[in-house]
Amino acid sequence: MTISVAVSGASGYAGGEVLRLLSGHPSVTVGAITAHSNAGSRLGELQPHLHALADRVLVDTTVENLAGHDVVFLALPHGASAAIAAELDPSVLVIDAGADHRLEDPLAWEKFYGSPHAGSWPYGLPELPGHRDRLKGATRIAVPGCYPTSCLLALTPGFAAGLLEPDDVVIVAASGTSGAGKAAKPHLLGSEVMGGMSPYGVGGGHRHTPEIEQGLSAAAGENVAVSFTPTLAPMSRGILTTATAKVRPGVSPEQLRSAWEEAYGSEHFVRLLPEGQWPATKMVVGSNYAALQLAYDAHANRVIVTCVIDNLNKGTAGGAVQSMNIALGLEETAGLTTQGVAP
Amino acid sequence: MTISVAVSGASGYAGGEVLRLLSGHPSVTVGAITAHSNAGSRLGELQPHLHALADRVLVDTTVENLAGHDVVFLALPHGASAAIAAELDPSVLVIDAGADHRLEDPLAWEKFYGSPHAGSWPYGLPELPGHRDRLKGATRIAVPGCYPTSCLLALTPGFAAGLLEPDDVVIVAASGTSGAGKAAKPHLLGSEVMGGMSPYGVGGGHRHTPEIEQGLSAAAGENVAVSFTPTLAPMSRGILTTATAKVRPGVSPEQLRSAWEEAYGSEHFVRLLPEGQWPATKMVVGSNYAALQLAYDAHANRVIVTCVIDNLNKGTAGGAVQSMNIALGLEETAGLTTQGVAP
Amino acid sequence: MTISVAVSGASGYAGGEVLRLLSGHPSVTVGAITAHSNAGSRLGELQPHLHALADRVLVDTTVENLAGHDVVFLALPHGASAAIAAELDPSVLVIDAGADHRLEDPLAWEKFYGSPHAGSWPYGLPELPGHRDRLKGATRIAVPGCYPTSCLLALTPGFAAGLLEPDDVVIVAASGTSGAGKAAKPHLLGSEVMGGMSPYGVGGGHRHTPEIEQGLSAAAGENVAVSFTPTLAPMSRGILTTATAKVRPGVSPEQLRSAWEEAYGSEHFVRLLPEGQWPATKMVVGSNYAALQLAYDAHANRVIVTCVIDNLNKGTAGGAVQSMNIALGLEETAGLTTQGVAP
Amino acid sequence: MTISVAVSGASGYAGGEVLRLLSGHPSVTVGAITAHSNAGSRLGELQPHLHALADRVLVDTTVENLAGHDVVFLALPHGASAAIAAELDPSVLVIDAGADHRLEDPLAWEKFYGSPHAGSWPYGLPELPGHRDRLKGATRIAVPGCYPTSCLLALTPGFAAGLLEPDDVVIVAASGTSGAGKAAKPHLLGSEVMGGMSPYGVGGGHRHTPEIEQGLSAAAGENVAVSFTPTLAPMSRGILTTATAKVRPGVSPEQLRSAWEEAYGSEHFVRLLPEGQWPATKMVVGSNYAALQLAYDAHANRVIVTCVIDNLNKGTAGGAVQSMNIALGLEETAGLTTQGVAP
Repeated sequence: MTISVAVSGASGYAGGEVLRLLSGHPSVTVGAITAHSNAGSRLGELQPHLHALADRVLVDTTVENLAGHDVVFLALPHGASAAIAAELDPSVLVIDAGADHRLEDPLAWEKFYGSPHAGSWPYGLPELPGHRDRLKGATRIAVPGCYPTSCLLALTPGFAAGLLEPDDVVIVAASGTSGAGKAAKPHLLGSEVMGGMSPYGVGGGHRHTPEIEQGLSAAAGENVAVSFTPTLAPMSRGILTTATAKVRPGVSPEQLRSAWEEAYGSEHFVRLLPEGQWPATKMVVGSNYAALQLAYDAHANRVIVTCVIDNLNKGTAGGAVQSMNIALGLEETAGLTTQGVAP
Repeated sequence: MTISVAVSGASGYAGGEVLRLLSGHPSVTVGAITAHSNAGSRLGELQPHLHALADRVLVDTTVENLAGHDVVFLALPHGASAAIAAELDPSVLVIDAGADHRLEDPLAWEKFYGSPHAGSWPYGLPELPGHRDRLKGATRIAVPGCYPTSCLLALTPGFAAGLLEPDDVVIVAASGTSGAGKAAKPHLLGSEVMGGMSPYGVGGGHRHTPEIEQGLSAAAGENVAVSFTPTLAPMSRGILTTATAKVRPGVSPEQLRSAWEEAYGSEHFVRLLPEGQWPATKMVVGSNYAALQLAYDAHANRVIVTCVIDNLNKGTAGGAVQSMNIALGLEETAGLTTQGVAP
Repeated sequence: MTISVAVSGASGYAGGEVLRLLSGHPSVTVGAITAHSNAGSRLGELQPHLHALADRVLVDTTVENLAGHDVVFLALPHGASAAIAAELDPSVLVIDAGADHRLEDPLAWEKFYGSPHAGSWPYGLPELPGHRDRLKGATRIAVPGCYPTSCLLALTPGFAAGLLEPDDVVIVAASGTSGAGKAAKPHLLGSEVMGGMSPYGVGGGHRHTPEIEQGLSAAAGENVAVSFTPTLAPMSRGILTTATAKVRPGVSPEQLRSAWEEAYGSEHFVRLLPEGQWPATKMVVGSNYAALQLAYDAHANRVIVTCVIDNLNKGTAGGAVQSMNIALGLEETAGLTTQGVAP
Repeated sequence: MTISVAVSGASGYAGGEVLRLLSGHPSVTVGAITAHSNAGSRLGELQPHLHALADRVLVDTTVENLAGHDVVFLALPHGASAAIAAELDPSVLVIDAGADHRLEDPLAWEKFYGSPHAGSWPYGLPELPGHRDRLKGATRIAVPGCYPTSCLLALTPGFAAGLLEPDDVVIVAASGTSGAGKAAKPHLLGSEVMGGMSPYGVGGGHRHTPEIEQGLSAAAGENVAVSFTPTLAPMSRGILTTATAKVRPGVSPEQLRSAWEEAYGSEHFVRLLPEGQWPATKMVVGSNYAALQLAYDAHANRVIVTCVIDNLNKGTAGGAVQSMNIALGLEETAGLTTQGVAP
């Protein structure tokens, strides 16, 4: 079976990684490659690492150009995908790498994005409880944000098992600069970011906060409040998330460890590392893998879970391809790798 | 007045930064430069950035070589300074950049370092309440650890003002690799650290945890429990600390801001940035400066304070020189700068 | 057909990359994984990015452990492979990623390596004139050095076409730190290499110089003298080579361009970029690709060719796998990719 | 004596470094700080590392605002300084960090810059033969380009001593990204530059080529032709230049070494390193220092000189302050340091 796939937003980092993965996918043919201001350019000028597709020419992101494919990837600015998706054939699989269809709560959407809510789609993080089944046969999939992917993988097992207090989750995460996209802004210049770190969106203002809370609350069966601080690290790719939560009275370190082991023991792309080994983002760069480790801090009565992913791969394009595979009944691992590119 | 200063441990990163600062200090003459296995080498082979001292030859770290100076800097491995300090003239100012004399509690020392406690010395962080006075005329000074410097500067104003809950401080900090020293270890190779981040010492195991708790507890007047997670960032210098604590009932965001403004309003080397501007480690690299910003996260009822320092400068050598200046009655800012080297 | 492959030196960077590629190769089963001092360790401790092989245990690098496979990769220190290769079944394909069998001239070997010459094997750079044919059916293959790979790809078309003067080639190349291996040395620490560049082996002393001259002389049909200066760049992977040579009288810029276009026009892994586009190492990281561009500098009457490769992939492990594919009659591209991992 | 200095272009990297140095200069008061589109902003928003000047407000770059100072630094886009300089009092010292007044040959200027030639000013590289005297008492000074600074320091001693052939100089240099300025361009994003290297301006097209040839030709007393290839390295600051030239018949390695030793033996800011030690850019970051090493490559009959500088300091702002000191009869080293900030 050969599946034809159209990719919009192909000049950006997310679109580029989608194309990189799809061009190595055994069941996929890359169809239309679309962009907005870069329509008419050769892909080789914009994504010079994609040598096999270098001579493909980008076309405009229109419904006409996206139509006629089995799958359409949308890697568009926030707010742009709802209108296009509405005009695509309902039987076509549409995978939205943007934020538009992630949040279930219209109020949360409007508060953080300031526009009308477009509704929510099945959430493309198959390792969360119950999510893989919802993706099978789906024709609309919302790809999780990169930070939420790592935060939810980090803490969901503990909340799903009822081991953690819901009212005081603290998460600090460090992301590579590709998470901020390819638009040229002075604070993202190499001269500014190399050799330094900085926080941003501190105090609850980051748009990923409601998405993290939505996922953890669903796992806990009650509202979970999260203090989330993202920081910008001097690396192109990768997220290191340090997530901590209060442990419920009477819960033992062994129970904690068991909860994570059970949650991920049969997963192909998520793994609790052996005790004593800590994750590092370079373990997973270029792969669809998430590596975790946890520690019980007796002093503060907190579990501390660290999780690493590649923000563009498992955090965006890899998770999207994995969800596509599930939706279409392909091998879940097709076109994806667990091996990082290191050093 | 010219002060003669001996520097031990001169082949390491801390010793190198002490020498860099002292060679530009208007009142100082650099005397003996000592090392252990590198005795006999030219400094230019070991610290090739210190061109003005390149032809100085390192001598062995002995009491004889360190004697006869007005000030002795000890930048030795943990556990090595107590024996040497005991043999130096009590009227000489001895400044210990190692950990030996930082902790007041012998039990905490023994738990984390596994050796007998050598006693505690005045603590070289003059911006903490009451500390500047204790340093005046002191002849023995313990230089704070680099992580504790940033953590204590971040949270002390809130605890000193009684605004924060003592039982649930969560700190995640990212440090440049120079904090791990110059010993060649595989996980510190450039190939391993460039382009990636990783945590270490998770779960309360880092030796800086008791030092942070000691300082915050002193400010709060009660025991403060801290969950501290350090991470290694791909940069040579700098620490970014994200420190959060629960806010006491009834405390307003304005009260919080005022507490920090009052604490640092008249300090030369520590500054709460204007609202809306977030610190970045590159603001302070090469300087003795600490820059902070805080946010009140209403959702989690936490204050989030971010603080940046240069781990080798304000976090080690700069703090040491500043303390020396105070102890000797020199201008507190002599030989130090507030200007970072950026970009 | 399934080919069983043993990999020695599996704890190093070259061995790790060989394993990464082989674990994704459709016709290969990874057999024995061997090391010297790390025998007995889990691979996951040493190569934590190779999640699919994490639980494999390294065995000692002995003839017994390497025997019984269809292919043996040797990624051993220089001078160590000849003795082992001599004891392996002559019908087994042995691929040496070390230097032992690269040089044809015993005197050049002895001058630069100071040990007896072990003889030369077919040279695993199939894009050089005539080399692909020599690799077909070979049972012993010498993998080129990473610098020579980029230098020979850069200049061979011009020498093979008789367009360049043989007496004054000047090459300056920048390599990522993984080229220096995984042994912990102080000057390779992250603190030392991040944010800086330095030369080494200047003045003809680098061991790759005779290998570069050997290849260019073979193409030119006369002795080519090369001034080669390698530099260390703050990146984990990648080589950027800037190679220049005097142009023979009467040669036009069009003739130059044609020579390179003809040499690589039908190659899958080597490409002269469209005019106006310059190569960048990030185009090829993680891939077996080489990208080139050339310019004619009328002022100096020199052609300047820049070439980028991933030193561990096309420069070592990728070239080795490509050569294995040719030797065994597999698809030349099996297990390899042209797509870089960027950004 | 206190000298009042106005700094234009204060929002860029060159202007920022000028301000950093001047704010630590013992004889200088920083007067007007000017910018174009950023006029009206606090300096702390644009140069957040300059804490001592954070509350200064930028004014518009006009003759009126620059007038009334003893010294005016111009750090403006190429082509913008001639008009302003013409209106400033002839007795005021004007130091142009831009290119406008570097080239003596109007034809070379017009070819590379495409605008009318504004004339040439004394060239601010005092370590070149005869240049220090020309700077004494000067009221107009052209600051050399950063690449030319390193290239001319590298090769001038050999040409001045008549030891090198003029017809085949090959230079490859690697620069940190701050050399490309602060304007936000996609290829300068951190995501693009971290972890990779790339060439640019290959084939004689870089504007610094005529400036390098001008300086070397003056030293040689005949025309020197240079092939110059710049490359972009993943670091914020620093230039590593590898410069090679053919050695004249009969010249011995000892004669070569002597020429450089004599040229720089009494210089404070330029040094030939001891034999066996190679320069690294991190030796000089943050300083006004240039470190060199040379090797004679017998095989190619070339001298290879490597030279490192900080492009923003010795390569721009440091050289400018050094020239100011000479022009005004101050201590040449005032406000400058030889000590790099490392690691």
